[in-house]
Amino acid sequence: MFQLHPTLEKDSHPIVEDDDLCVRLINDARFPWVLVVPKVTGQTELHELNNDLFDKTFRVVRRLGRVLKAEFAADKINTASIGNMVPQLHVHVVARHQRDAAWPGPVWGAGAMVPLSDPEKTKRIQLIIDGLKLD
Amino acid sequence: MFQLHPTLEKDSHPIVEDDDLCVRLINDARFPWVLVVPKVTGQTELHELNNDLFDKTFRVVRRLGRVLKAEFAADKINTASIGNMVPQLHVHVVARHQRDAAWPGPVWGAGAMVPLSDPEKTKRIQLIIDGLKLD
Repeated sequence: MFQLHPTLEKDSHPIVEDDDLCVRLINDARFPWVLVVPKVTGQTELHELNNDLFDKTFRVVRRLGRVLKAEFAADKINTASIGNMVPQLHVHVVARHQRDAAWPGPVWGAGAMVPLSDPEKTKRIQLIIDGLKLD
Repeated sequence: MFQLHPTLEKDSHPIVEDDDLCVRLINDARFPWVLVVPKVTGQTELHELNNDLFDKTFRVVRRLGRVLKAEFAADKINTASIGNMVPQLHVHVVARHQRDAAWPGPVWGAGAMVPLSDPEKTKRIQLIIDGLKLD
C-alpha cells in the first residue's frame, strides 16, 4: 500500500494525483520545483519500474518540463532521480534561472529551503495545473 | 551534424556508440559515472526530444542503471539531465556508494574530478560493455 514518504509529504504540496502518480510542488520559493512520485512500494530505481509505469512517469515529467519552462520562463529544466536521502522513488523537475540561488550548481544540497507564501504557493500550483491542461 | 561538446569530449571516454546515442565514461575515479548523449543538435531539454529518441535514450539509461548497480555494487543510482553548464543534452547515470566522496550530496559540483588510471578506465569500460551484453 503506497504511502508518501514523510519527508516528501513535509517538503511539498499536492498539485495533482491519479492512481499511478502524485505530482507535488516543493515548498521552496527559490525554485519552481516539482516532484513526480510513482505510487510503488519497494522499487527505488528507475530501472526497477515496469515499462508502463516508467513510460507514464516520464510522459508526465516531460510535460512538466515543457510547462515549467514556459510558465516560469526558465533558462533550463533540471530533471533528476537521486534518492540518496529519501529512498522512495521520486523524480525532480526544476525550473532553473541563470540568476537563481544555486545557478549553475544543482538545487540538491544548495542551502536551506525558503518556504513559499500561501499566495505564491497557490499561484504556482494553478500555473502548473493550467499548463498541464493546455499541453 | 552532431558533434560532441568539447567539455564532454574532454571529461569522458567513449564506451559504445550507434547512430542515435553516444555512451561515455566520465574520467573521475571517485564515481562510476556514465553519460548518455543523444545525437541531436539544437535540442537541449528532454521534452524537446522526439518520443522515439527519448524512449531509446532512456532504455539505455535504465539498462546502464541496472548494470552500474550490479557491476559496481552501488547503493543508489543517480540519474539526471541538468545541462546548466554544458548545453548539449546529456543524461548522467552515476553509481553512488554510501562512503563515496560526495554522499549523500549530488556529484555535480562536488569538488575536482580525480582522473582514472588507464587500467581502471579500461576495467570500468569493459565491465559496462559486458554488463550491457548480458542485460
